[in-house]
Amino acid sequence: MQPTDNPRHIKSDTLESLRDRLRRFSEERDWDQFHAPKNLAIALAVEAAELLEHFQWLKEEDSKHLAPEQLAKVREEMADVLLYLIRLADKLDVDLVQAAADKIERNAQKYPADKARGNSKKYTDL
Amino acid sequence: MQPTDNPRHIKSDTLESLRDRLRRFSEERDWDQFHAPKNLAIALAVEAAELLEHFQWLKEEDSKHLAPEQLAKVREEMADVLLYLIRLADKLDVDLVQAAADKIERNAQKYPADKARGNSKKYTDL
Amino acid sequence: MQPTDNPRHIKSDTLESLRDRLRRFSEERDWDQFHAPKNLAIALAVEAAELLEHFQWLKEEDSKHLAPEQLAKVREEMADVLLYLIRLADKLDVDLVQAAADKIERNAQKYPADKARGNSKKYTDL
Amino acid sequence: MQPTDNPRHIKSDTLESLRDRLRRFSEERDWDQFHAPKNLAIALAVEAAELLEHFQWLKEEDSKHLAPEQLAKVREEMADVLLYLIRLADKLDVDLVQAAADKIERNAQKYPADKARGNSKKYTDL
Repeated sequence: MQPTDNPRHIKSDTLESLRDRLRRFSEERDWDQFHAPKNLAIALAVEAAELLEHFQWLKEEDSKHLAPEQLAKVREEMADVLLYLIRLADKLDVDLVQAAADKIERNAQKYPADKARGNSKKYTDL
Repeated sequence: MQPTDNPRHIKSDTLESLRDRLRRFSEERDWDQFHAPKNLAIALAVEAAELLEHFQWLKEEDSKHLAPEQLAKVREEMADVLLYLIRLADKLDVDLVQAAADKIERNAQKYPADKARGNSKKYTDL
Repeated sequence: MQPTDNPRHIKSDTLESLRDRLRRFSEERDWDQFHAPKNLAIALAVEAAELLEHFQWLKEEDSKHLAPEQLAKVREEMADVLLYLIRLADKLDVDLVQAAADKIERNAQKYPADKARGNSKKYTDL
Repeated sequence: MQPTDNPRHIKSDTLESLRDRLRRFSEERDWDQFHAPKNLAIALAVEAAELLEHFQWLKEEDSKHLAPEQLAKVREEMADVLLYLIRLADKLDVDLVQAAADKIERNAQKYPADKARGNSKKYTDL
């Protein structure tokens, strides 16, 4: 599926089309010089912390019911995390979706459903 | 597109199918009780830092050429970041790809190519 | 006050003596080459996330009553954060305690007690 | 050594006097309700990331020579990290300086000078 400039079709974006748009974005600005994987990993961690900041003083329960303007900011920080993750994956030639699918498999073996059920003590990973 | 247990077809996974697999994974383990957005945002930041840890003492240039066993670990941490991001998006009902596409648009206006070219001073975002 | 090798007197350590011990530690191992401020800032963020990891699935209330073995691990992560912070301050020639005292002054002006009382909305800083 | 309100004597602050000032600061604003260790650990990680943000696109070498206005911002973020660390230590009844001294001892055993010299591979900790 090709990226498109038609905003009505933007839903058809995929991780691949986002990757391609980020490539062009960076090329047009001559920003590839800054995008060493080390720097992208820093940027990713910084964005993840900016996302977390919105939750820092919230009660756990309240974090489930964000006000619309709060959710809009959170959504934008989530986008930043995804964009840097896609960019890093591009630079390292990692297939993100495949990597995630592999990790779910590994977690399924690490946390068998019958042993892990409701157990926060064993819960140190997804 | 449906998730599949056939490993040869696992490439056909999408963010949606990963989301569905994470939902089942969590339900089978009764882990939804831990997955308040606040906690997922913490987990995401922790995973982003674990990813960053692999780069902390590397020279910028060396971060472009990871050894295969190093890359395998980095790939796994990237998967963890994506999985928590998908899980958080599910809980907050955020369309990740749409959010990312919107953010690219916003960045394009914020950093016009002609002004931002090669400029690390203005470079505070993707 | 001088650092001492006498373990019974270790209580007399101060930030300055810790700084001096870290300097010697690094010199003896030829590690200064790795300690650019950028790398130390990464290491600090990584340690802060390792500290946070111990709290990620805990209820807010339970985080006030850590089991002794959990507290021991948390204490060690807090030490790591402090050590990297001292090291970074040394490299940048920052007086940490003075910087912190200055910041308390600034926060006192930013958050007047009568306006900020019990107000989590204005609460975006210490 | 007692904390003092005399700004000329502010150099005499110690971690203990900073702890006491933060206690009063929080009491006057009724902010203790927000200061569960879990929340303070989040705030600490967020501040560490804000500190890191200043370094994200800098060359390693350039991070050693910050411009004065950049250093002023970095210094303020370092203060934030220290303040939250002191506050967390107060809530968990941890002696920060003692914890750090203990950790240096442990690291000295973990990384014997003769084996660790100039070795970035073994370098996974201070």
